[in-house]
Amino acid sequence: MPINLDKLQQNLNYHFSDLELAERALTHRSANKLNNERLEFLGDSLLGFIIAEALFEIYPDADEGELSRMRASMVNKASLAEIARELELGDCMQLGAGELKSGGKHRESILADATEAIIAAIYLDGGMVACTQLVRDWSEQKLHAPNSDQKQKDFKTRLQELMQAKGVSLPRYEVIKITGEAHRQTFHVECTIADLEGTQRGVGRSKRMAEQAAAQKILDALGESP
Amino acid sequence: MPINLDKLQQNLNYHFSDLELAERALTHRSANKLNNERLEFLGDSLLGFIIAEALFEIYPDADEGELSRMRASMVNKASLAEIARELELGDCMQLGAGELKSGGKHRESILADATEAIIAAIYLDGGMVACTQLVRDWSEQKLHAPNSDQKQKDFKTRLQELMQAKGVSLPRYEVIKITGEAHRQTFHVECTIADLEGTQRGVGRSKRMAEQAAAQKILDALGESP
Repeated sequence: MPINLDKLQQNLNYHFSDLELAERALTHRSANKLNNERLEFLGDSLLGFIIAEALFEIYPDADEGELSRMRASMVNKASLAEIARELELGDCMQLGAGELKSGGKHRESILADATEAIIAAIYLDGGMVACTQLVRDWSEQKLHAPNSDQKQKDFKTRLQELMQAKGVSLPRYEVIKITGEAHRQTFHVECTIADLEGTQRGVGRSKRMAEQAAAQKILDALGESP
Repeated sequence: MPINLDKLQQNLNYHFSDLELAERALTHRSANKLNNERLEFLGDSLLGFIIAEALFEIYPDADEGELSRMRASMVNKASLAEIARELELGDCMQLGAGELKSGGKHRESILADATEAIIAAIYLDGGMVACTQLVRDWSEQKLHAPNSDQKQKDFKTRLQELMQAKGVSLPRYEVIKITGEAHRQTFHVECTIADLEGTQRGVGRSKRMAEQAAAQKILDALGESP
């Protein structure tokens, strides 16, 4: 089964020069001797560094212990698997027949490893700046609330649930503009709730992020921010 | 006691634009509330990544397990303290009175932390390329023999011991040329053993590295390489 790289690249908001790197990153050892394990090794340390640097910058007053705890809460199997799910990496994985049958594409460890491997692949393909930006984009919400013990609901989910609770119409999202070159696009999204006045616009490096930004603004306007 | 930054920068083969970063990296928590702990946090992950990437490149056929073992053998307290000793970081440390009295500048954990902190300081001051090059320089020998269980003796030491065993005159090293700009010098060193014919030249990013390269060539010429 060939990997659908167009969809992958769209989800990643990154276009590979060397598509073989992307394929390798999503090839589990059960599928091929040439698999993603070496990339996973590199991506693991790269991710650790990118998150460490981001926390170092965002929290200038945090001491080493706080920074370490924040990083540990972000760089772990569950968090990495969550990123993989948002990027829909599981659907693009090359798995051996056994793993495929036993639902390997949903397994947390396989997903977490794929996240690390794809990060290394992007780094090798596009360099540190591109890779850092993407990882920060994917981790944005957690970077700004790294210690929230209970998994913080994203803005879109919170807005949706709030509207359901109020019994009003649900939010609608529309991409109104995409700017920038193919490898570095910016999405502009408008969020509208038919029963409420006013719409809000959000901007982001991916459709999802732009939608989150728009949802956040509506929550702010409604006085429903956390 | 002010830190002798000239000597430090010479040992590092790096000149800081922001000297405060260097001072901070060498300030132990016993000396000041503004100390090197945050830099150590950043340097720890940065070092892990730089070594991971170097091993990934140098050993294209090594699997993830081998790469992990090699990295663990290089990135640990003893190895980092060893780098600190070669760079003479201990002499530049700012320690509180108690730590100073109890010999803190020789303590392995303090030295290892200082190595991590100075790596972060160089990164923040000079960027990834400069930092990576220096860390690879400092780690060069281990990168190419990462799994040697017994601490491998460096080439200068081996040559010295060999000459002593043979009862001939000891090697003499002379810097014959320094090229490159101040922040990125290359040292050319000549090694001579009076009782033996021929001299050998070595080139390196620091005096020490050039001497090691020259000593290695003499060992090669004598058929005494490991």
